[in-house]
Amino acid sequence: MGVVAGKYGKEYYLKMVHEHRFPQELWRELGARSLFGFLVDKELGGYGGGLPEFVEATRMLSYSVATLAYVFVAQNLVSRMVAKNGDSEQLQSLLPKLMVGDIRVAMGLAEDAAGSDALGVSTSAERVPEGYRLTGRKDYVTEAAHVDAIIIVAKTRGDVRAKSLSAFLVPSSHPGLSFTETHKMGLDFLTLYSVGIDATVDSKALLGVEHEAWGYLSETFALDRVALAAMLNGVSARLLEEACGYARMRVVFGRPIGANQGVQFPLARAHTELLASQALVDSVAKQQSTASQSFAADSVAAFYHSAHSAYEAADVALQVKGAKGYIEGFEEACFRDIRYYRIGPLSEELSLATIARRGLHLPS
Amino acid sequence: MGVVAGKYGKEYYLKMVHEHRFPQELWRELGARSLFGFLVDKELGGYGGGLPEFVEATRMLSYSVATLAYVFVAQNLVSRMVAKNGDSEQLQSLLPKLMVGDIRVAMGLAEDAAGSDALGVSTSAERVPEGYRLTGRKDYVTEAAHVDAIIIVAKTRGDVRAKSLSAFLVPSSHPGLSFTETHKMGLDFLTLYSVGIDATVDSKALLGVEHEAWGYLSETFALDRVALAAMLNGVSARLLEEACGYARMRVVFGRPIGANQGVQFPLARAHTELLASQALVDSVAKQQSTASQSFAADSVAAFYHSAHSAYEAADVALQVKGAKGYIEGFEEACFRDIRYYRIGPLSEELSLATIARRGLHLPS
Amino acid sequence: MGVVAGKYGKEYYLKMVHEHRFPQELWRELGARSLFGFLVDKELGGYGGGLPEFVEATRMLSYSVATLAYVFVAQNLVSRMVAKNGDSEQLQSLLPKLMVGDIRVAMGLAEDAAGSDALGVSTSAERVPEGYRLTGRKDYVTEAAHVDAIIIVAKTRGDVRAKSLSAFLVPSSHPGLSFTETHKMGLDFLTLYSVGIDATVDSKALLGVEHEAWGYLSETFALDRVALAAMLNGVSARLLEEACGYARMRVVFGRPIGANQGVQFPLARAHTELLASQALVDSVAKQQSTASQSFAADSVAAFYHSAHSAYEAADVALQVKGAKGYIEGFEEACFRDIRYYRIGPLSEELSLATIARRGLHLPS
Amino acid sequence: MGVVAGKYGKEYYLKMVHEHRFPQELWRELGARSLFGFLVDKELGGYGGGLPEFVEATRMLSYSVATLAYVFVAQNLVSRMVAKNGDSEQLQSLLPKLMVGDIRVAMGLAEDAAGSDALGVSTSAERVPEGYRLTGRKDYVTEAAHVDAIIIVAKTRGDVRAKSLSAFLVPSSHPGLSFTETHKMGLDFLTLYSVGIDATVDSKALLGVEHEAWGYLSETFALDRVALAAMLNGVSARLLEEACGYARMRVVFGRPIGANQGVQFPLARAHTELLASQALVDSVAKQQSTASQSFAADSVAAFYHSAHSAYEAADVALQVKGAKGYIEGFEEACFRDIRYYRIGPLSEELSLATIARRGLHLPS
Ligand SMILES: Cc1cc2nc3c(=O)[nH]c(=O)nc-3n(C[C@H](O)[C@H](O)[C@H](O)COP(=O)(O)OP(=O)(O)OC[C@H]3O[C@@H](n4cnc5c(N)ncnc54)[C@H](O)[C@@H]3O)c2cc1C
Ligand SMILES: Cc1cc2nc3c(=O)[nH]c(=O)nc-3n(C[C@H](O)[C@H](O)[C@H](O)COP(=O)(O)OP(=O)(O)OC[C@H]3O[C@@H](n4cnc5c(N)ncnc54)[C@H](O)[C@@H]3O)c2cc1C
Ligand SMILES: Cc1cc2nc3c(=O)[nH]c(=O)nc-3n(C[C@H](O)[C@H](O)[C@H](O)COP(=O)(O)OP(=O)(O)OC[C@H]3O[C@@H](n4cnc5c(N)ncnc54)[C@H](O)[C@@H]3O)c2cc1C
Ligand SMILES: Cc1cc2nc3c(=O)[nH]c(=O)nc-3n(C[C@H](O)[C@H](O)[C@H](O)COP(=O)(O)OP(=O)(O)OC[C@H]3O[C@@H](n4cnc5c(N)ncnc54)[C@H](O)[C@@H]3O)c2cc1C
Repeated sequence: MGVVAGKYGKEYYLKMVHEHRFPQELWRELGARSLFGFLVDKELGGYGGGLPEFVEATRMLSYSVATLAYVFVAQNLVSRMVAKNGDSEQLQSLLPKLMVGDIRVAMGLAEDAAGSDALGVSTSAERVPEGYRLTGRKDYVTEAAHVDAIIIVAKTRGDVRAKSLSAFLVPSSHPGLSFTETHKMGLDFLTLYSVGIDATVDSKALLGVEHEAWGYLSETFALDRVALAAMLNGVSARLLEEACGYARMRVVFGRPIGANQGVQFPLARAHTELLASQALVDSVAKQQSTASQSFAADSVAAFYHSAHSAYEAADVALQVKGAKGYIEGFEEACFRDIRYYRIGPLSEELSLATIARRGLHLPS
Repeated sequence: MGVVAGKYGKEYYLKMVHEHRFPQELWRELGARSLFGFLVDKELGGYGGGLPEFVEATRMLSYSVATLAYVFVAQNLVSRMVAKNGDSEQLQSLLPKLMVGDIRVAMGLAEDAAGSDALGVSTSAERVPEGYRLTGRKDYVTEAAHVDAIIIVAKTRGDVRAKSLSAFLVPSSHPGLSFTETHKMGLDFLTLYSVGIDATVDSKALLGVEHEAWGYLSETFALDRVALAAMLNGVSARLLEEACGYARMRVVFGRPIGANQGVQFPLARAHTELLASQALVDSVAKQQSTASQSFAADSVAAFYHSAHSAYEAADVALQVKGAKGYIEGFEEACFRDIRYYRIGPLSEELSLATIARRGLHLPS
Repeated sequence: MGVVAGKYGKEYYLKMVHEHRFPQELWRELGARSLFGFLVDKELGGYGGGLPEFVEATRMLSYSVATLAYVFVAQNLVSRMVAKNGDSEQLQSLLPKLMVGDIRVAMGLAEDAAGSDALGVSTSAERVPEGYRLTGRKDYVTEAAHVDAIIIVAKTRGDVRAKSLSAFLVPSSHPGLSFTETHKMGLDFLTLYSVGIDATVDSKALLGVEHEAWGYLSETFALDRVALAAMLNGVSARLLEEACGYARMRVVFGRPIGANQGVQFPLARAHTELLASQALVDSVAKQQSTASQSFAADSVAAFYHSAHSAYEAADVALQVKGAKGYIEGFEEACFRDIRYYRIGPLSEELSLATIARRGLHLPS
Repeated sequence: MGVVAGKYGKEYYLKMVHEHRFPQELWRELGARSLFGFLVDKELGGYGGGLPEFVEATRMLSYSVATLAYVFVAQNLVSRMVAKNGDSEQLQSLLPKLMVGDIRVAMGLAEDAAGSDALGVSTSAERVPEGYRLTGRKDYVTEAAHVDAIIIVAKTRGDVRAKSLSAFLVPSSHPGLSFTETHKMGLDFLTLYSVGIDATVDSKALLGVEHEAWGYLSETFALDRVALAAMLNGVSARLLEEACGYARMRVVFGRPIGANQGVQFPLARAHTELLASQALVDSVAKQQSTASQSFAADSVAAFYHSAHSAYEAADVALQVKGAKGYIEGFEEACFRDIRYYRIGPLSEELSLATIARRGLHLPS
């Protein structure tokens, strides 16, 4: 990872942002080194890394390429999910391609009408002779039209909520999928699509056990929170480093702006929060079981805290640069990107509600 | 103003943002009604409005067209400045055109090397037989290449700081001006240019008394703070109204999201802050003298408070809409725009420093 | 009021705090000037002041004697409540004594089991031949054992909530009342009692119409919020003035601490918030109807904002004085006192809930 | 430590607070187990614990007895300082008594006129035939009149600042020391004295090398920050646990208050901050060198963050209990105690300045 992080840096990030394009070169580089199998066991051909190492690698990458590191996190979690839940055919034919990035996968879960209530999605998968008939709409699928395949989460039976979802890996070129693009505040290097679904897929498209997708999706999301937290830590570290460098050398009113406590104190606060976020993420990453209630709550706490400290870091970094911070550039782009992580993949409000209920056992 | 505000609304604002273009239609409409002479005395052909009425009119407009109201504020302050400081020829030939918007004016004060220290600018104006020779660079001039004229502030003598600046009204087509565009996070309907200056202008270009520009610029800026505060109040009111409407009808987990205190409380806080901002702006606008130390401090307090409450309103409005808030649209655009007002025209840090020194008489 | 505020100052406040005693001298002084009839109509022998004047008088007093001004606010609202709702006998015999402070009155509403849900109190008043039999317990009655009479709010009928409460004015020496003192963090000049009630009172003790107390109590509470807000404004102004004075003259590391932005900025922020609170209180005080839904919401907003800004002012004032702020004295005492106003008479949480529901019409 | 923490709990803490007395029984218990030699090497008869274990032990204790754990921290750092810097006689005669608590020691550094500028103290120690003549005043010495000895820090030579201080261990009964008590907001179980000094002491009173006290004091203070941070973590954990318990069972408006997000979210935020503080303290405690610049900055960051999260925890715990939180009791006392740690031993402002300069290398 050191090599990749050394090769692709801030400029590359800014280039992708500026050109509104997917970091194809970075993707290939990561794939060439099988870095999309980071969390996959060695026996299955993966790198066999644990969560602490993944955290470290993610931070190193995001320190260099900022939020582009998202693509590393997202695909790795797909690889791990397939490794843990795939049938033998999927392990043999699909997994190797995921690990080298030959198959790039998007996640199709969220629906506008369900909102934050993921178990309330209404896209359905009905058994038909040919396999499953999928009908519905996924309103927010990152990169949907450009990936090789989409994981479509659908209801395979009625009202049992936590035991009613199944996930299908569907090629994005599959007949019956239609794409409408929407634009957004940041993350300019990723597209966002609403995907209309009216398609019949083979049974082999099913990932894991029918009706049981929520189980492994939840566990994946818990890991995702921790990894995204690490990504945000890396971006924050870079933002603060740049901001301190600027504060040391920018002279206004006859002295470096960094000599003013009005500049020093917000930087010192943001730095302290970042140290605390990092320590929290590290300690959560070391926990044994990743499938427990307490890991679920703690992973959300680590994510919430890191999104918060990253937002603080981006805000102060932008502020320290004044007009130059508001002009298109590193702080400006990171600020727009990081704002997302207060909304998704889990909003601040639902993060706090999760911590309150699962971590503190408060009633609902 | 009621009529104009009725005619141009949120959609118009979004159209300008989307198309990255100046609100020409709104401009003409305001000009047609002489609304750019709002603060100019009746004897000089103006509307003769006081600051309290200007505050009210600005709020009404910004409630409809959000930050587009900036163009109303900016030009009115130019008209007023000319009315108060222009010579008789300027009053006769220039002022009437300003008031109907036939001449649109930009402000060229800030220079990168001087930063927030406006008195530290280095663009100079040297007396020459033909008038003045202006040399230097203004790094952040909103709309520079598209307006009719730019007010260029330059040093006309050495180190006396507060008594060393003069302002010149220079046509943007004047030979010797060169323009480089920069892009920025928000305010997409306004362009931003760095203006290279190497030009000789007629003495008639001088606005007010030589060396004395800082006096009337300061007073103008104090009024500007109050008017921008009012503009931000109007945008906030709209943002919160829309957010409450959304919170009332958006159902997730089986009930309106607005029934959750996690949604209610931030809205209630932002609403309370807005009420306080509005009350503060109103009370400051009613002060008699606009040239005193205490008005200077209080106008900054009103601006600082309103920028703060507007940012809070934009943040919570975006948050309440979740993914829809992050998607291109009203909240998303307002959020990007309002972020600017924590940096300029007076940064939070310098706002607080001004309040501390001029309002609280703390030492420097 | 100017005279009283001139006579009793910070030292008097500190003396009361230190000696843990009720401000008897201040009370007599206010009574001697009939200042407890401030809000009572002239026809009834009162001063006939409106809410804006009451706000001004309260601020002037609290600027001098800090939270001692509570006694001025509390008794005035009792006088007003009696003036508006008393029968002719009460107007003639009771009201005059209230206005000069010959009868001091406490409020007995809150019960531990009901908590913030005032309509959920369980103290009951049953009609009996001699009048009413009152049974129950009021857990938090300020000064209960030392006042002349207590307003006891009790259920006179079943479940109609808003139309089930009646208020009785009961002498504190009445048989059947028992008092248990509790100690608290601040407001050392006021005692707090839990009052056991098992007493039969005359029908004349009834205040206003039976079952209808909630109506006039609510209106009284709305006024109370605004007046307490004004009280908190006055205390804040004094705290900040003292803190700025200290910051100007206290020299550490070779220069006044007030020359550091780390000291300046929190003071400037607190000052700005106070200006905003004051402006908000003033604007709410000017509203016409004090019985409307919107006044209810706005009075809570004014109170919430002022409690917040007062707490900020107390915190920064204490902080600026360092060890001297933590040592017994003005900042230390005010800080402990003001903490109360985030809990009562209406907690922050219920303030926000009220603003959200009544002001913003969010669902419950 | 487990045994001690099991024996002395919340009630013991409240008893000490209520009776305003030093926790003599706890002290003896800790001494009896030689727990005041926690950080002293085994060779010198100590327990030989490292900083991570000390952190753990302190947290365990403060979870039980809250801020009383201060006495454990303070004396242990004195023992360690003597162990590291004492001459052989001190190691033999003094150290053993310190470790069992037979000699209790106070710290006399701060002077009012110097304020936060510890190197600016003016108490002087002049060499005289009998040893040293100490003259000056130490304005804030915790427990001065009740301990066995006071470490008096004095200038032994002129202007070299960091190389001009020496420390003397002086019996509090020594002739020439005079004591004046001051009262304060919290920490009721500890007294505070201003100590007048006009005394001649034996050369043996000198601790460590003459002129070089600042070196070992700084290192001691760095450890002190981390240990106090741990103490604050323990108190926070207890406060939040109690608050959650209360929120689960307290019913108002027909349901547990903990079912309201207005109660849940602040608890969840405070809990998350506490997790982060703990992780940060743990990671700082594990650092190798405790004498480096970076440890100095990080120990301050750990302290600052923990004081902040503890204050948040105390504030929310008090708030959740409503009136019961403001009444004398656990939350009320902890809140008053913890407020101190935003002022001393290192104020928030100087903490941030230290982080900015030593951690972020910003200019001064
Ligand atoms: C840029 C972007 C990329 C995305 N990429 C993907 C993707 O690749 N795949 C995918 O499946 N999804 C994706 N999403 C969707 C994302 O996961 C959604 O934002 C998420 O599902 C939330 O839904 P919503 O915005 O409809 O929020 P809503 O549920 O409508 O929430 C609106 C607001 O109400 C609050 N709220 C809701 N319920 C409660 C409650 N009970 N208590 C308190 N507050 C509450 C929320 O916190 C939020 O502030 C993406 C979204 C964005 C913006
Ligand atoms: C979109 C946009 C439009 C603009 N339009 C115009 C225009 O039309 N005309 C025009 O003349 N100018 C314009 N400006 C310039 C604007 O007024 C500048 O932002 C301003 O001059 C500040 O300069 P700076 O960014 O170089 O800040 P700097 O002075 O470099 O400040 C950088 C940071 O340091 C802080 N800082 C500086 N000094 C201190 C101190 N003593 N104490 C504490 N903190 C300090 C600042 O608060 C800021 O956070 C525009 C700027 C932008 C971004
Ligand atoms: C010093 C002092 C003096 C007083 N003097 C008087 C007096 O003279 N007369 C009198 O009648 N009363 C008096 N009171 C009582 C005061 O009015 C009470 O504090 C009030 O009734 C609140 O009740 P509680 O503390 O039981 O709070 P609870 O209702 O138990 O509240 C506990 C916490 O839960 C929160 N909470 C409760 N319900 C909700 C909800 N639905 N949503 C979100 N959060 C919620 C509250 O905000 C609070 O933070 C006094 C109290 C004190 C401390
Ligand atoms: C309860 C208590 C117990 C104590 N126990 C002891 C003890 O046992 N032994 C002992 O030696 N001391 C003790 N102290 C003293 C403590 O260490 C002092 O509080 C400390 O020395 C700070 O001094 P000061 O309060 O005079 O602050 P000042 O230096 O006067 O500071 C006042 C304010 O100005 C701010 N300030 C100062 N300089 C700057 C700057 N350059 N930039 C920004 N802000 C600045 C501070 O942060 C603070 O907010 C105790 C104090 C208290 C309150």
